[in-house]
Amino acid sequence: MPKYRLTIEYDGRPFAGWQRQENTLTVQQVLESAVAGFCGESITVHAAGRTDAGVHARGQVCHIEIENRLSPRKVADALNAHLRPHPVAITACTLADDGFHARFSATGRAYRYRIVNRRAPLTLDKGLAWWVPSGLDSDAMHAAAQVLVGQHDFSSFRATICQARTPVKTLDRLKVKRTGDVIEIFAEARSFLHHQVRILTGSLRLVGEGKWTADDLRDALDARDRTAAGETAPPNGLYLTAVRYGDVATAVPVSAE
Amino acid sequence: MPKYRLTIEYDGRPFAGWQRQENTLTVQQVLESAVAGFCGESITVHAAGRTDAGVHARGQVCHIEIENRLSPRKVADALNAHLRPHPVAITACTLADDGFHARFSATGRAYRYRIVNRRAPLTLDKGLAWWVPSGLDSDAMHAAAQVLVGQHDFSSFRATICQARTPVKTLDRLKVKRTGDVIEIFAEARSFLHHQVRILTGSLRLVGEGKWTADDLRDALDARDRTAAGETAPPNGLYLTAVRYGDVATAVPVSAE
Repeated sequence: MPKYRLTIEYDGRPFAGWQRQENTLTVQQVLESAVAGFCGESITVHAAGRTDAGVHARGQVCHIEIENRLSPRKVADALNAHLRPHPVAITACTLADDGFHARFSATGRAYRYRIVNRRAPLTLDKGLAWWVPSGLDSDAMHAAAQVLVGQHDFSSFRATICQARTPVKTLDRLKVKRTGDVIEIFAEARSFLHHQVRILTGSLRLVGEGKWTADDLRDALDARDRTAAGETAPPNGLYLTAVRYGDVATAVPVSAE
Repeated sequence: MPKYRLTIEYDGRPFAGWQRQENTLTVQQVLESAVAGFCGESITVHAAGRTDAGVHARGQVCHIEIENRLSPRKVADALNAHLRPHPVAITACTLADDGFHARFSATGRAYRYRIVNRRAPLTLDKGLAWWVPSGLDSDAMHAAAQVLVGQHDFSSFRATICQARTPVKTLDRLKVKRTGDVIEIFAEARSFLHHQVRILTGSLRLVGEGKWTADDLRDALDARDRTAAGETAPPNGLYLTAVRYGDVATAVPVSAE
């Protein structure tokens, strides 16, 4: 059976997250319905990241195995037709090796957290960013963030409901960059704990406001206690932007051929 | 009476455009209601650009004259509070000279048109860009666009309902730039004809698709006939980004102080 690797984009607002649940709309369910609608097969769609309710994706990756042997382009077009009117789109599709698994083969995940830092409420960015009206020092945020890079016990930056076997993770990159009123936080790791990027963001906000120093951030990390860190930033600012697969080449974009 | 200059951002989707009309929601009306709500005064709000239904603004400029003498920051905060829940926000406010008029003092207007050029339908960008699935050559679009820069009779790029006294305008800049799947068209002039940027965009699409050459674009211009140019691109891709005032300094941003 051919296996296809899909790159997926979605607006997280109408969804109760990635994972299929009874009686609520989820991205997984919408995708599985699109597969059934297009080829009549009932399958499970596996994704690299099980994003939470309200979290967006620009570069989620999934795989599907279906009986139909079609060109990747036809698969993408057919799925996109069946995904309507939901704000979910297949932006790239390639044939994958038998051994490929969107979740287990992934060697890196990249998230971006978007803050709009200004006194004025959001208009065009509503639901697409976190509005923080208090002035934030993004240079201080970036400098302090480096304390968290590397391998650490991230218990302080982990939702209490997190089911990961270990709180020890290696954060490969944590960059804070301001462009005008927009502050973006780029986080990269092999994998993340539940709510990790959002709690990192809530804590970096305290640094940006001058309430915390880099040492306070290190103390929060060392405490290994969720109550020692900042608030969980809202989901609408978070984007799953890319998934890395060791030696698998980048998907050929379906767009703009 | 103090006069305030306001920089305004809005999501054009819920509005029947800028200008006050009976029985429909417009940006002007929402702003005038916010002024009345905040200081009890019934005034007319004057804007630099009377944007059409569905057109967005990142840098619309207005002025208001009110009896209350307050700090510009207090005016912006009070208006923003009264603008809720509409997607309209005051992003900057300064005291203006008596002679300042948002519309008549303006010496330049800048628009940006945003295209997402890919096969996959839009999700996060829905309502915020024009989806063009056919591949566009943005370099060819940019090169051809230069034919239109300068002073010309733009009758071909003017809505039939346009009320401007003359179709002769000077286009100072028309730049086409691609970043990944996003193509942005930047247009700057002292003033524009009705639908001018949208018709320019619809015509440049034909160039991007290879259906028109730069010579075809010049022929369309020379025809001085609306039917000779391309379609009117949809309003949701258009943003009024900035307004220039000869010697008036840039407004001090209210945001992130």
